[in-house]
Amino acid sequence: MGNIAVFGTAIVGQTHAERLVSLGHDVMIGTRNVKETLARSGAGGKPSFSEWLKKFPNIKPGTYAEAAAFGELIINATNGSGTLAAFELAGKNNLSAKVILDISNPLDFSKGMPPSLFVCNTDSLAEQIQQKFPETKVVKALNTMNANVQVNPALVPEDHNAFLAGNDEAAKTKVKELLRSYGWSDKSIMDLGDLTASRGLEMILPLWVRLWSVIKNPMFNFKIVTG
Amino acid sequence: MGNIAVFGTAIVGQTHAERLVSLGHDVMIGTRNVKETLARSGAGGKPSFSEWLKKFPNIKPGTYAEAAAFGELIINATNGSGTLAAFELAGKNNLSAKVILDISNPLDFSKGMPPSLFVCNTDSLAEQIQQKFPETKVVKALNTMNANVQVNPALVPEDHNAFLAGNDEAAKTKVKELLRSYGWSDKSIMDLGDLTASRGLEMILPLWVRLWSVIKNPMFNFKIVTG
Repeated sequence: MGNIAVFGTAIVGQTHAERLVSLGHDVMIGTRNVKETLARSGAGGKPSFSEWLKKFPNIKPGTYAEAAAFGELIINATNGSGTLAAFELAGKNNLSAKVILDISNPLDFSKGMPPSLFVCNTDSLAEQIQQKFPETKVVKALNTMNANVQVNPALVPEDHNAFLAGNDEAAKTKVKELLRSYGWSDKSIMDLGDLTASRGLEMILPLWVRLWSVIKNPMFNFKIVTG
Repeated sequence: MGNIAVFGTAIVGQTHAERLVSLGHDVMIGTRNVKETLARSGAGGKPSFSEWLKKFPNIKPGTYAEAAAFGELIINATNGSGTLAAFELAGKNNLSAKVILDISNPLDFSKGMPPSLFVCNTDSLAEQIQQKFPETKVVKALNTMNANVQVNPALVPEDHNAFLAGNDEAAKTKVKELLRSYGWSDKSIMDLGDLTASRGLEMILPLWVRLWSVIKNPMFNFKIVTG
């Protein structure tokens, strides 16, 4: 599958980067300012980014531009509110023809907890990326569950689903290949068609957040059961 | 459980009314103008409302006001866009202390197909009903699936979930009792807390609509699987 870039150095980006190197990929993890990110101390008792990074010689830190140039596929694990700025910094040349696996969510924390969304009904963050960076091939997937479940579906023992949406069939095939390497069965992967399906996939987040507060454990997922 | 009112004479209202009389309830099905509704001819080869009604002597037609006065519990099966007007016509006196099971969806067809929603992120139709008619006790439930599955969960053979949300515990207990009589197991009913959870429950509709177009059969539902 080749080199993979991960945009975003927080826990979701780290979770994907770790999993990808365990699968034999070379990974570059992109951030706005490498020096600043490496100097950051760990929050809430967690190891700092640089402490975490030391454990994984096959994960290289880089700017968004360097990571975009490096990766054949780019996993967008930035905060939704910072996504478009990150792609702007990556630069159109580095993004040309790249497959973007967008796992981010357009969460709006400005009105307090729980978060709502900063897109509404007839728009989605995935479509905003695709529209602003038409040289990319955006595939929305995995945003509907916890990052640990994303990269290791067996954490939820029963069958459950990974949805995906995008306008480019070859890009979707590439993302499906990645999902299978993460452990998703063919049966569990549901292709919902073009990128406008991202609206529904992002709009599921408020229910996910509420379910988390009821179940009190983020290791759950949606399964579609049919008659 | 006593008398039940159903607001809305279209297929969703009919589906609930039929199921309720089969369970031994007396049902009044409410509409804006009874005479007009009875005179309506069937659309798309379906029997007209009056033809359908002849088969069920225990279902009485009435105005929204009459139905609200009749029912101890009111099932809101109107179109989302007509919901507040229907409650306005029902009248505050008739609505006083009534439990409203709101199964409607705030679907917006004004921008073409597929529909989107006419509420956004920090609001829901269920909350609008509760706010505009504070004398009622609104419980949101069942809006996340096809009407046939709502009243007969066994149509989807595997386990799946009915979510519910509301601010009044006694009202939720009453709705849970109704759900159990429809065939929902205790395990399948997930109480998501207060009525703000309706936002997430209504926001799931765009994904539901997309899944329907992919599965090509409306007899499916969401199941939450846990680790």
